Amino acid sequence: MNYRQVFKILCLILRCIACLMLLPILVGILNKEPETWTFIVTAAGCFVFSMASLLWKPKNRSIYAREGFVIVSVSWLLLGVIGALPFLFSGVIPSFVDAFFEIVSGFTTTGASILTDIEALPRCMLFWRSFSIWIGGMGVLVFVLAIVPLSSGRDMHILRAEAPGPAVGKLVPKMKQTAMILYGIYIALTIIELVLLLFGGMSLFDAATHAFSNAGTGGFSTKNAGIPAFQSAYIEIVLTVFMFLFSVNFNIFYFLLIRRAKDVVKNEEFRWYILITVASILAITCNIFSTYNSVGTALRHAAFQVATVSSTTGFSSADFAQWPELSRMILLLLMLLGGCGGSTAGGLKISRLVILGKSILREIRRLSHPRSVTVIKVDGQSLDEDVVTGTTMYFLTYIGILLAGMLLISFNGLDFETTFSSVVACFNNVGPGFGEIVGPMGNYASLSDFSKIVLSFLMLLGRLEIFPMLIIFSPSIWYKRRSFGRARKQYHPHKV
Amino acid sequence: MNYRQVFKILCLILRCIACLMLLPILVGILNKEPETWTFIVTAAGCFVFSMASLLWKPKNRSIYAREGFVIVSVSWLLLGVIGALPFLFSGVIPSFVDAFFEIVSGFTTTGASILTDIEALPRCMLFWRSFSIWIGGMGVLVFVLAIVPLSSGRDMHILRAEAPGPAVGKLVPKMKQTAMILYGIYIALTIIELVLLLFGGMSLFDAATHAFSNAGTGGFSTKNAGIPAFQSAYIEIVLTVFMFLFSVNFNIFYFLLIRRAKDVVKNEEFRWYILITVASILAITCNIFSTYNSVGTALRHAAFQVATVSSTTGFSSADFAQWPELSRMILLLLMLLGGCGGSTAGGLKISRLVILGKSILREIRRLSHPRSVTVIKVDGQSLDEDVVTGTTMYFLTYIGILLAGMLLISFNGLDFETTFSSVVACFNNVGPGFGEIVGPMGNYASLSDFSKIVLSFLMLLGRLEIFPMLIIFSPSIWYKRRSFGRARKQYHPHKV
Repeated sequence: MNYRQVFKILCLILRCIACLMLLPILVGILNKEPETWTFIVTAAGCFVFSMASLLWKPKNRSIYAREGFVIVSVSWLLLGVIGALPFLFSGVIPSFVDAFFEIVSGFTTTGASILTDIEALPRCMLFWRSFSIWIGGMGVLVFVLAIVPLSSGRDMHILRAEAPGPAVGKLVPKMKQTAMILYGIYIALTIIELVLLLFGGMSLFDAATHAFSNAGTGGFSTKNAGIPAFQSAYIEIVLTVFMFLFSVNFNIFYFLLIRRAKDVVKNEEFRWYILITVASILAITCNIFSTYNSVGTALRHAAFQVATVSSTTGFSSADFAQWPELSRMILLLLMLLGGCGGSTAGGLKISRLVILGKSILREIRRLSHPRSVTVIKVDGQSLDEDVVTGTTMYFLTYIGILLAGMLLISFNGLDFETTFSSVVACFNNVGPGFGEIVGPMGNYASLSDFSKIVLSFLMLLGRLEIFPMLIIFSPSIWYKRRSFGRARKQYHPHKV
Repeated sequence: MNYRQVFKILCLILRCIACLMLLPILVGILNKEPETWTFIVTAAGCFVFSMASLLWKPKNRSIYAREGFVIVSVSWLLLGVIGALPFLFSGVIPSFVDAFFEIVSGFTTTGASILTDIEALPRCMLFWRSFSIWIGGMGVLVFVLAIVPLSSGRDMHILRAEAPGPAVGKLVPKMKQTAMILYGIYIALTIIELVLLLFGGMSLFDAATHAFSNAGTGGFSTKNAGIPAFQSAYIEIVLTVFMFLFSVNFNIFYFLLIRRAKDVVKNEEFRWYILITVASILAITCNIFSTYNSVGTALRHAAFQVATVSSTTGFSSADFAQWPELSRMILLLLMLLGGCGGSTAGGLKISRLVILGKSILREIRRLSHPRSVTVIKVDGQSLDEDVVTGTTMYFLTYIGILLAGMLLISFNGLDFETTFSSVVACFNNVGPGFGEIVGPMGNYASLSDFSKIVLSFLMLLGRLEIFPMLIIFSPSIWYKRRSFGRARKQYHPHKV
């Protein structure tokens, strides 16, 4: 473990957090809010502490897989702790566990809240909540690397560990340029959404916070009643469209920009995602038609809920917890599935579903024709057997953590639906679950501190795609490196 | 596909079913019940039809993996259809779907019932229900092969497809002898239990039916109130001990018989099973202590419930649906887990858990040390990589079917807990689920016919360990064999 280089990058991230806090400070000053000092103090503290990196310089700058995992997981824990400080200092959220839960929920783009009265918060705090989603959506390390080059070729290990889906690094040969292209698309889409929301009659503040929440697929609102508070079908439709866009692999937009529509059509993940989404919307529309007695309204609610759940955003329009069991089960399965790899959405990801589905079909073929040897193809290309193994291992661990999470949350003594859906909603970075307590009209305030810590950790596991957070508990990672050869194999959760 | 040989073996199984029906006929005659004719007609019909095999003789007797899967899945469907006929003919269960559900629930050792008044049934019918569990526990094909040798060496493909865990064939070199040893242990344990239950004051009829239900880990009772109807702590303790014994790999008993205690201690699955069971009992005892206010009573109830759930028997003593959420979650996880491979228990099996757990640890090691190559060891022996892949594929498919089952049952419009737990309880061959409807004090009568068919199919999928039932839907299996070479690779869900 190259502790010095890890420390240096962590200090870089501290400085980056300090810079990002300038925006809520600006919002606080513009609104003349007294709570602004909490951001100023936190940012100044981060900046001063980060100067420590000048004292302890790295001997060599090499970063391998281990260092990549440690940097990512520790910096995300740091984000949570530091991000919670303004809430705590200002007394807006008096408990550290609550403040940590709230901001981790933001950075991991979950959108689960412990706040019972959102509208009572100062604007700078509301802005910070939504902005944290936007930062977390693309990843703070991707941002750092887009600006500061570290060492040639080695940044890959950090990006691989942070990016939701490893599409990063496949667009253009250079890492930094890829990161910049992705951030460019992200910023452009956010601005377009902001403008469209302004047209819908939202104030600049509401439009910005909702655009940030939506872009990162987090789903924090500035209203207690959520999206229905705006009473505008136009706003609902804009949000529906953008939730869908932000849960699609960003490569798709890049291919469209450089006019390679053939690659878009060839993309199996994208085709499956559209198919699943359309089928779910139609099924739910039929199922809830009798509740609304209008095809238009039923379709709008169905599309909004499907988009909010499969993009793992977690905005709520209708109270879907009251819908019939079939609709709720479809939404639950979509929660588990999530969006496409290489997007800001959470969940298992459609690309993994495609690989897993194909490997089951292959297993059936292998059992009935034991001598047949077949390769799994995605997008017309043969998939490396390592990728298939990596994906199944990911799924195994995913289910294992889901069950372990349920066991830990059951200490809280809630009913089964709440226990189950709170774990699913947090681990998949969706936000609201089912049932009265954690449903779309409820919040996580009444849960025990232990449950909140477990759920915060589940959110981090979900956002960082499990292994980076798990690996730091493996003792062997903290030893000195035994050999200095180059790591040949890299971590591919799946190729797109 | 060697259709003629498949047909011949299916006729052999029909004859076997006819023979097995002699026992309920005997019970009917002894009790002078008019419904006995239904068994006589069914058995006679089976026997007459099975004579068709004399007309259509096979040209060659070769059986490969494909034929093995088809024989097993078709014969189990036959078992269900024929086994349901006496219920239907006598009018005891007027609907075919209900009768099919009830007897499939028996043969698959599930123990889920659609009967609302069990005690109203004639004794021959009650006996048939419990006896079906005993037959299904060890497998009807294992029984056929223990008596009739088919062709040297090829029976393996049938046994592999039917046996819960592939331990069969590993005790002694010859297939037939292994099957006889296993049946010997099975019969001996059943008789010991029967005698012990007689000592507890049960009638011969009750003792026999409960011993059969318990040996196959099915859990049908002859009383509406289940085991509490006997009001005897002794009977509860005997059942607890035997539920535990029947969920242990039968190899363990064989090793004890031939005094190879070292192999018992070395068995990782067995050690993990004991550890998990003891930990669960202690946790639940602490959790429910306040309900019973007596360590003894709490411990007895906890041990009984843990045994009934992890052996997937499904007898009920206390109404565990009323226990605190932690206890219920532990029981739910134990349901998913099931017993040991090579026992009559259902579920995922501990041996698979061990392999899956070790492969997750290996993945974590591989990610942090990309160049390391490690082999998974179980019981001190390196595991073939094919076995690891087979096990992870099994788990993938297991979860896939669980989710698909939940989606299909949600058409019924029940609450989430009922939907979820009925699928888990049927697929893992446990029987009762959670919630008021399908809980230990409820039954499956009120579900729709569609749900009952889906659940029946899930029980068969669970009992036959998924793939044999899935493979018959693969079109390629029904083609003529393209080459006649010997199938080299065989199906190993896991080695023990």
